[in-house]
Amino acid sequence: MSDDPLYTPLCRLLGIELPILQAGMAGGPTTPELVAAVSEAGGLGTLGAAYMEPEAIREAVRAIRRLTAKPFGVNLFAAPMRDDYSRYREVQAVLDRLAAPLGVPPRAGIEPVPTPDRLERQFEVLMEEGVPVISTAFAPLPERLARAARDAGRHVATMVTTVEEAEIAEAAGCDFLVAQGSDAGGHRGTFDVERHPNGALVGTFSLVPQVADRAGIPVAAAGGVMDGRGLAAALLLGAQGAQLGTRFLTAAESGAHAAYREALLASREDDTVVTRWFSGRPARALRNRFVAEAERAGIEPMPFPSHNTATGPMRREAARQGDAGYMALWSGQAPRLLTRDTPAADIVREIAAQARALLTRGRAN
Amino acid sequence: MSDDPLYTPLCRLLGIELPILQAGMAGGPTTPELVAAVSEAGGLGTLGAAYMEPEAIREAVRAIRRLTAKPFGVNLFAAPMRDDYSRYREVQAVLDRLAAPLGVPPRAGIEPVPTPDRLERQFEVLMEEGVPVISTAFAPLPERLARAARDAGRHVATMVTTVEEAEIAEAAGCDFLVAQGSDAGGHRGTFDVERHPNGALVGTFSLVPQVADRAGIPVAAAGGVMDGRGLAAALLLGAQGAQLGTRFLTAAESGAHAAYREALLASREDDTVVTRWFSGRPARALRNRFVAEAERAGIEPMPFPSHNTATGPMRREAARQGDAGYMALWSGQAPRLLTRDTPAADIVREIAAQARALLTRGRAN
Repeated sequence: MSDDPLYTPLCRLLGIELPILQAGMAGGPTTPELVAAVSEAGGLGTLGAAYMEPEAIREAVRAIRRLTAKPFGVNLFAAPMRDDYSRYREVQAVLDRLAAPLGVPPRAGIEPVPTPDRLERQFEVLMEEGVPVISTAFAPLPERLARAARDAGRHVATMVTTVEEAEIAEAAGCDFLVAQGSDAGGHRGTFDVERHPNGALVGTFSLVPQVADRAGIPVAAAGGVMDGRGLAAALLLGAQGAQLGTRFLTAAESGAHAAYREALLASREDDTVVTRWFSGRPARALRNRFVAEAERAGIEPMPFPSHNTATGPMRREAARQGDAGYMALWSGQAPRLLTRDTPAADIVREIAAQARALLTRGRAN
Repeated sequence: MSDDPLYTPLCRLLGIELPILQAGMAGGPTTPELVAAVSEAGGLGTLGAAYMEPEAIREAVRAIRRLTAKPFGVNLFAAPMRDDYSRYREVQAVLDRLAAPLGVPPRAGIEPVPTPDRLERQFEVLMEEGVPVISTAFAPLPERLARAARDAGRHVATMVTTVEEAEIAEAAGCDFLVAQGSDAGGHRGTFDVERHPNGALVGTFSLVPQVADRAGIPVAAAGGVMDGRGLAAALLLGAQGAQLGTRFLTAAESGAHAAYREALLASREDDTVVTRWFSGRPARALRNRFVAEAERAGIEPMPFPSHNTATGPMRREAARQGDAGYMALWSGQAPRLLTRDTPAADIVREIAAQARALLTRGRAN
């Protein structure tokens, strides 16, 4: 057994050197260059593939493989993709009004677009391509898929926001868990959003030891981990690693839009809000113009995934125009700890060095 | 300089051995026995005196002094106590309806009770009695009082929930800060509740390093700290100590109602909610019958302190009957880490021993 305080059982399980997981953020930030850089540096890079066509995932996985021979992960959404457009006209009319300043054509008068359900075909590609780690949000992989993955020697994980979800995920065959505190940016991983409409919002500091006490498998902490202090603290709270999303959004290799990066770098710890207005599921984002106006609309958004499909045209037009007022600016609660354009490998190495120093010295002061 | 990782500059400043602060919870839990036991064990006990008459504070401080010669603190509310009963009839009618099952007589038809403003007289007692540490919630001490306290060699602190509040508090003459993450139970310390109606809700894990980076004075972490893992993590995140509230509510010496303790010991990490229905200020409590029904009432509570005064008869009757459905069951987000009836000195010693072992060994696994 290693004397390195950073070499945890999770590292051994995944065959990585450092317990630093880059979150599989959907929607473009996780370029093959970012994923590979994190893995090459000793952590676990993860492709956020939830919204990708299966063949695009295959291409990205092969691009990652050309850049690194080390383990990496791919993240998918394991929620049922059943559309519910029963409130389409009412909600789309609000979206039309809010997106009008961008010049997005109104859609309330036309038929809604069906949301594709790609999970099975996405999963098949991951199996065919031999992806070492398959992680999910919103639920564990369906039992049949999880078994197939494990039988093939792959590692399976899901994100949990309560102790009960950790118990469900472990029973569903996960190899490790990501305990996502309320500090985290992006979608809440909460399984049952009818019971927790805004997601379970237990702070990272509180969630990690309670999940670690109950879980018989390794736990990585997520939500507010930004530097070596965070990694060291996560390990002492009982985690065996940390997953960082926001920190990598402003990395050199990040695919996040330039306007999104600038918004992150200009933001403060109290600038985020948990909103369902981008996707229909609760997610933490910077409170931009769209969020502020949507939260005042006086009605509820549609459920996921239909609402997500409905806001697609607005989000794409915002990206085209570079208007951060209408993008989904996912962010955790520690944006003051962001750095600008740092190469991902440097981020990983600096976090590891700082955490190792803190854990070896045993004090920050 | 000591080699003990627990002996921080905050310990030196306050003349204590361990960086473990017991939160000054108002409303009865902080008996002189609890405060003295924490201080005797090497931490800083704190009397939650916000709602106490000045002469009752004097008596309690003298009782603490009879039990320990070590430093301790007293916590006050430094918010302006200006009543606003402009919506009294509407809100009191709801309170009357909700409290009816307890047999509380309706009050909407009678005059509201003015809230006393005791801060100046409470402060005078603390000065006369030589209380070593004066901490506040909702705002720093008014400048004139802070200067008087510091001139007399007392230490002054306040609770902050954002980096901006930390900057305000430091400029107002605080000697140290308590960075209160959203994981914390009880009142949010947020200064400006018009800007943040539910309080600033930045997780402990995220808030502590961001405040520590900006503060020129020591910071203690609050919110979800329950054991030695939490203390060790707080120190590595940049804090110089931790403040624990919930953990001491089920201590042997706690003055918390038996029904309140039982509710805490039976609760889970996702059972709390931030509500303004007890006091008019946002505060984290277990979601009991009163909270669930009040949050469905469809109207806003009155502002603090008027709403707090208005719910007083219900809370007192609930305590008399031992009915936890109508008490303010303040709780942080890690109730699974509570222990039953542990003597406070044992809590302090166990936390210190566990944190010291973790920081010395440099790993939890």
